[in-house]
Amino acid sequence: MQRTDLTIQGFEAAAVKARIRGKDRLDIGLIVSRVPAVAAAVYTTSLVKAAPVLLGMEKIKSGKARAIMVNSGIANACTGEQGMENARGCARLLAEALEVSEDQVHVSSTGVIGMQLDMANFTGSIPALVEALSENGFDDVSRAMMTTDTVPKTALRDIVLGGKQVKILGLAKGSGMIMPNMATMLCFLCTDVVISPELLQKSLTQAVNLSFNRITVDGDTSTNDTALILANGLAKNFPVDDSATDTEMFQAVLNDLLKDLALQIVRDGEGATKLITIRVDGAKSMDDAKNAALTVANSALVKTAFFGEDANWGRIIGALGRSGAMFDPCQVDIAFDQVLMVKDGLGQGRETEVLATEILKKKEFSVNIHLKAGQFSYEEYTCDFSIDYVKINADYRS
Amino acid sequence: MQRTDLTIQGFEAAAVKARIRGKDRLDIGLIVSRVPAVAAAVYTTSLVKAAPVLLGMEKIKSGKARAIMVNSGIANACTGEQGMENARGCARLLAEALEVSEDQVHVSSTGVIGMQLDMANFTGSIPALVEALSENGFDDVSRAMMTTDTVPKTALRDIVLGGKQVKILGLAKGSGMIMPNMATMLCFLCTDVVISPELLQKSLTQAVNLSFNRITVDGDTSTNDTALILANGLAKNFPVDDSATDTEMFQAVLNDLLKDLALQIVRDGEGATKLITIRVDGAKSMDDAKNAALTVANSALVKTAFFGEDANWGRIIGALGRSGAMFDPCQVDIAFDQVLMVKDGLGQGRETEVLATEILKKKEFSVNIHLKAGQFSYEEYTCDFSIDYVKINADYRS
Repeated sequence: MQRTDLTIQGFEAAAVKARIRGKDRLDIGLIVSRVPAVAAAVYTTSLVKAAPVLLGMEKIKSGKARAIMVNSGIANACTGEQGMENARGCARLLAEALEVSEDQVHVSSTGVIGMQLDMANFTGSIPALVEALSENGFDDVSRAMMTTDTVPKTALRDIVLGGKQVKILGLAKGSGMIMPNMATMLCFLCTDVVISPELLQKSLTQAVNLSFNRITVDGDTSTNDTALILANGLAKNFPVDDSATDTEMFQAVLNDLLKDLALQIVRDGEGATKLITIRVDGAKSMDDAKNAALTVANSALVKTAFFGEDANWGRIIGALGRSGAMFDPCQVDIAFDQVLMVKDGLGQGRETEVLATEILKKKEFSVNIHLKAGQFSYEEYTCDFSIDYVKINADYRS
Repeated sequence: MQRTDLTIQGFEAAAVKARIRGKDRLDIGLIVSRVPAVAAAVYTTSLVKAAPVLLGMEKIKSGKARAIMVNSGIANACTGEQGMENARGCARLLAEALEVSEDQVHVSSTGVIGMQLDMANFTGSIPALVEALSENGFDDVSRAMMTTDTVPKTALRDIVLGGKQVKILGLAKGSGMIMPNMATMLCFLCTDVVISPELLQKSLTQAVNLSFNRITVDGDTSTNDTALILANGLAKNFPVDDSATDTEMFQAVLNDLLKDLALQIVRDGEGATKLITIRVDGAKSMDDAKNAALTVANSALVKTAFFGEDANWGRIIGALGRSGAMFDPCQVDIAFDQVLMVKDGLGQGRETEVLATEILKKKEFSVNIHLKAGQFSYEEYTCDFSIDYVKINADYRS
């Protein structure tokens, strides 16, 4: 279903079918700011970075950008010098068509690793892409970014800062290869807020850490992860930087929007049927809290038990035991939502298991783990591991 | 198929149907040395250790043992003080029946976590179990240990040390929750060699590090992992400790036997259709080599691609990139057996991909990764990730 409310002043967008992925599929998207915009980005932590990521890391240093072009089908990763040239070539072609400076044009790719882009797909499509730019093109872009995604991911927030209406609009893609940090995840954000590049970067980093860096589908991180935000300042609010309250409010809304997009990704995880929050409390250190949550969230045995709606808490405790977190196994509590399955390391019997099994039948629930070893907490978001996950990934390229 | 050659002087074995797992299934096994034996063991590194593991860790300190009783169906893990009492109770009952000292009787369990053993299953079965002891009982024990295993795992080696014939006999189980270190893996070894407890421990630890600590099925480690060896000395060889050559030979044969059992476990990995060796060369450090191999071996995306017989080397490079190992992505080589798919970070085109796809159709093959960053190598053994893995684990308890 087309989302028609996705507009934001000063930004235009469009997508075309460029035959990178089949003949009849939107596969190149474009977002343009009519005026120069402040920009910030967060990229994959993988040692193996795709060409557009390497290029973007250079460009973002200026703190300014005008346009983002994204293609699906081919990731332009592990493509060597040819891949870098192609990424630069795409940016150049688009800069010429838009008549803007090349260094303010960002490119992004997602899809199969190791294949070269065919520049003909871009030379043939960019004129039509630029021609098609409109206020209402964001929904199309959200679809052009999709790979194994089954639904587009979009979010929009309004906020009043110093009496002025400010908007943030976000598009994201991601379904597999999702794992902190970042995953095959692309997220493009447009806002009309007035903000410095420094604060924009700081805000984006914090929001990514609380959202995209807390989700896992399959434990794999990608070569292409990018979160990129453009702020064109057309809201004409006093700069967010000048007011602690405005800074806080902007951050809170950005955090909320990115968490929304991140959870959309997990819900659409390859083959996923459930969204599960793994919450760890009472850890001895932040590292322990994080390792404990992440180990449970990534355990194939835990995730298949969720798929089977089996309240198999032994697998959760097994994962905690190998997580590296320090705790006394005889003190651990584990609850599914409000149902306390394990108290002080011991199962609470058949009756609670029946109640817990009811929780597992829900589409979304929490696993609440209390280690009773300290004061630190962490939340991670995961999905179940289904037969369809294997089917999707055994067949991805065929 | 019954294996009739599994005998070793001075040892007897038996198994019975004790109704722990259904009515008509061998589920308690027993191995006894007719004379006091030297003993050594390696246990799970998980912080969460099952009751029989905690008990065994105490008992093994003496370096002597007479008997091992193992049950499947219930793991006696996360069972608190009651679980410890039950483990001790099992050992006591058996010690009385065998008329040996309780501290030389080891117990071991595998199965569902969090359930208490029913002592009635043991009081009712131990007399029959002791009664059934015979030279030919090892095959039955190997079956009584099985949980989701589809085949029993056994191995036998002969070796001449100082003119004397020496035997090593091994039984193992394990199919899921397999991950370094150790996994839901039980391995019981009997040998008639003359050896000190210290050297036996050292040898077992080395052999475990080169075998069970290098296999992964699903990345999960269990609460119950145990490798226990008894050496009764009846071969009357000069003590292995006295000769560097004998020590080396014994070690080599023990390593070989444990690797054999470890690979049997991976081949029988839950839902596995292929055994894959992940070999990393040219790593900057041993940690890098290990992390790189293990990250590839555990990647759900890599393992599903193997299941799909898809030569998707991008997923391998993606896993290497997030492994933490340091290397230059533009220098990596990746071969499937002898087919070089990636040279200096670049795919070698359609033709090699066709050849590589032929390799992937084999039941057993190697992925050979050269990082060109240093001198360290590591090998890890894994299996593919199939639809049946999910089916088995979504249904395990039902």
